[in-house]
Amino acid sequence: MKKVRALGRHLVAEFYGCSFEALDDLDRVVNSMREAAEVAGATIVDSSFHRFLPHGISGVVVIAESHLTIHTWPEYGYAAVDLFTCGDEVNPWKAFEYLRIKLEADRTDVAEHLRGIYSEVGIPDNAPHKVEQ
Amino acid sequence: MKKVRALGRHLVAEFYGCSFEALDDLDRVVNSMREAAEVAGATIVDSSFHRFLPHGISGVVVIAESHLTIHTWPEYGYAAVDLFTCGDEVNPWKAFEYLRIKLEADRTDVAEHLRGIYSEVGIPDNAPHKVEQ
Repeated sequence: MKKVRALGRHLVAEFYGCSFEALDDLDRVVNSMREAAEVAGATIVDSSFHRFLPHGISGVVVIAESHLTIHTWPEYGYAAVDLFTCGDEVNPWKAFEYLRIKLEADRTDVAEHLRGIYSEVGIPDNAPHKVEQ
Repeated sequence: MKKVRALGRHLVAEFYGCSFEALDDLDRVVNSMREAAEVAGATIVDSSFHRFLPHGISGVVVIAESHLTIHTWPEYGYAAVDLFTCGDEVNPWKAFEYLRIKLEADRTDVAEHLRGIYSEVGIPDNAPHKVEQ
């Protein structure tokens, strides 16, 4: 079977049934996201987290290989998580597994997108920095 | 037909055939993204943009209603764009249309995700801050 090559892969993840504390504590969310980036093998370039009233945190970790983001609704035990990584050396699924445990999710849904599919972008199949699936 | 209610909606967008200059000029990318947020009706909370060598820009605009992100490959005329907004008063499609013109894309692919679907999260249908589709 011919492999589909792409510049990156992106997990659009829904985390349900998380603990209120895991989604409402700013330090805990920041640490969870930064550690998830490290677990995935990513290089952190910058990060920005904000707490909203009465509940909820939004956060972005910019990595050299794209980004990780989170938006939390502690009152619903829900978090919208995006894990977008480029290159073969970073694995977004490792970040996903790490966060699933740290946020104490009891259920998740994930849609995986290949971003920048070579044949769509017009990149030769033998170019470097590919993600294979 | 019963409407599906969700906390937010998220456009996962591929921009092809963009002009090199539109994707490689840091000021131009920053302005395009911040203006796209404003056009969509979003409130900008923070932003972070980085230029990579030899080419490519990564950028995030954190908005009160979630986030907009971009990663560009000027050498391929390609940009991976995410437009994630919450609430009924912000329209990610307005940001998409604005960016399509500013980045001079000649082709796009978009996948729209509803994030935090009420019935999945366990939110009553009559709760406020819904997105309807």
